[in-house]
Amino acid sequence: MRYALVVAYDGTNYCGWQVQPNGVTIQSNMLEAAYAAFKTDNVTICASGRTDSGVHAKGQVCHMDVETTIPPERIADAMNVYLPQDISVLSSHLAKDGFDANRSAKKKTYIYNMYFAPRRNPLKDRYSVFVKGTPNVQKMREAAELFEGEHDFKAYCASGSQVVTTVRIIYKLQVDEVIEGDICNISISVCGNGFLYNMVRTIAGTLLYYAMGRMSLDDIKKSLSTGDRNCVGKTMPPNGLILDSVLYD
Amino acid sequence: MRYALVVAYDGTNYCGWQVQPNGVTIQSNMLEAAYAAFKTDNVTICASGRTDSGVHAKGQVCHMDVETTIPPERIADAMNVYLPQDISVLSSHLAKDGFDANRSAKKKTYIYNMYFAPRRNPLKDRYSVFVKGTPNVQKMREAAELFEGEHDFKAYCASGSQVVTTVRIIYKLQVDEVIEGDICNISISVCGNGFLYNMVRTIAGTLLYYAMGRMSLDDIKKSLSTGDRNCVGKTMPPNGLILDSVLYD
Repeated sequence: MRYALVVAYDGTNYCGWQVQPNGVTIQSNMLEAAYAAFKTDNVTICASGRTDSGVHAKGQVCHMDVETTIPPERIADAMNVYLPQDISVLSSHLAKDGFDANRSAKKKTYIYNMYFAPRRNPLKDRYSVFVKGTPNVQKMREAAELFEGEHDFKAYCASGSQVVTTVRIIYKLQVDEVIEGDICNISISVCGNGFLYNMVRTIAGTLLYYAMGRMSLDDIKKSLSTGDRNCVGKTMPPNGLILDSVLYD
Repeated sequence: MRYALVVAYDGTNYCGWQVQPNGVTIQSNMLEAAYAAFKTDNVTICASGRTDSGVHAKGQVCHMDVETTIPPERIADAMNVYLPQDISVLSSHLAKDGFDANRSAKKKTYIYNMYFAPRRNPLKDRYSVFVKGTPNVQKMREAAELFEGEHDFKAYCASGSQVVTTVRIIYKLQVDEVIEGDICNISISVCGNGFLYNMVRTIAGTLLYYAMGRMSLDDIKKSLSTGDRNCVGKTMPPNGLILDSVLYD
């Protein structure tokens, strides 16, 4: 049978989602937990997409193929018994016919968090990236508008990735601000039909660079029209990135 | 010279504030950073109060005695160079005459965080404690009122602590709720003139037990009038507790 799982994880101590020869991953932990819970090695687990080393997830979606007599809704608890504290199956149910966590995904939302402050704050660092100073939120929002719609995001794709096309649609790119004393928390929420390797982290860095006056709106327009990687900001660190949710039909 | 420092830390990996023979503490790290920054061992650092193993601080206040030519406002940066990622001096300045971080403190605010959800969430666990189900916020607020004012908190003080008096004043005990999908975040904010060992964590457990129907308002009243430890809820885990701020004249 095929089941759909919603999974949350703190990615700090993992080499990303995908099983790999060296290094502990979310997927390898999920498989180990499934082997233990269902008492069989005959299990496959596939996510909506990989997340990179150090990236977190609030609502990753997976499908899992396994034969078990455990009721679908209880599978979450059965697996959580064997999962480490930083990974949790939030819910489980029987998948609809033809459901594939990766191929059936229609929209994904990622959130990138930064905090602007006079000095680094240890209570923020785990899920947000420190930037010294105060942000120009208005400028960030100005730049954000340019990304909405269908574009060739070649300039925002880390080299070495193999994809058929670098064209993606961003439905919404929203910049939210929450003030907390002398800290200004910025959340960049990006909803799209799919994302290239490092795309959200590079968009976040580009909004930041524009807001800091280190690049112009013309640079951003050029990056989208020509794919020139010299016209984008830096790729931000992974710990600020959270896969928020995946939408299906 | 005496300096006043505001310090934030993630207490997860520390045996609390105070230097002790076995185990790494915040104070021992602060001292090591000061030795390195000021190139002398002739330094003392004293906090507004100890925090226990695993407890966090957003605004711990310390005084530090040291001779240095570093300008007061730059001391924070000078020490941060030598501090680990999970401790940060947020600000530094010259202390007023007679300032003592512990004795001059007038009010302290602690925050205790819990989250109510169907299942554990790894992105919450570091600074908040999981409770299965949904909270009765109204009942928590009902119980909270009983604690405000001057009371003998003997029943809320862990055994083994040596204090002159167990009488303390709570100026305000506030229960705030923030809903996030199927998660309900509860913050219990307690402002008082001082706190006994485990007092906030036991008050938080008592509000929770009353809200869950495991004890009555009469139990709470009795705990405050008689000091009977059988009339209080459980002492909640340390990771939900944050020393928010310390107020001076």
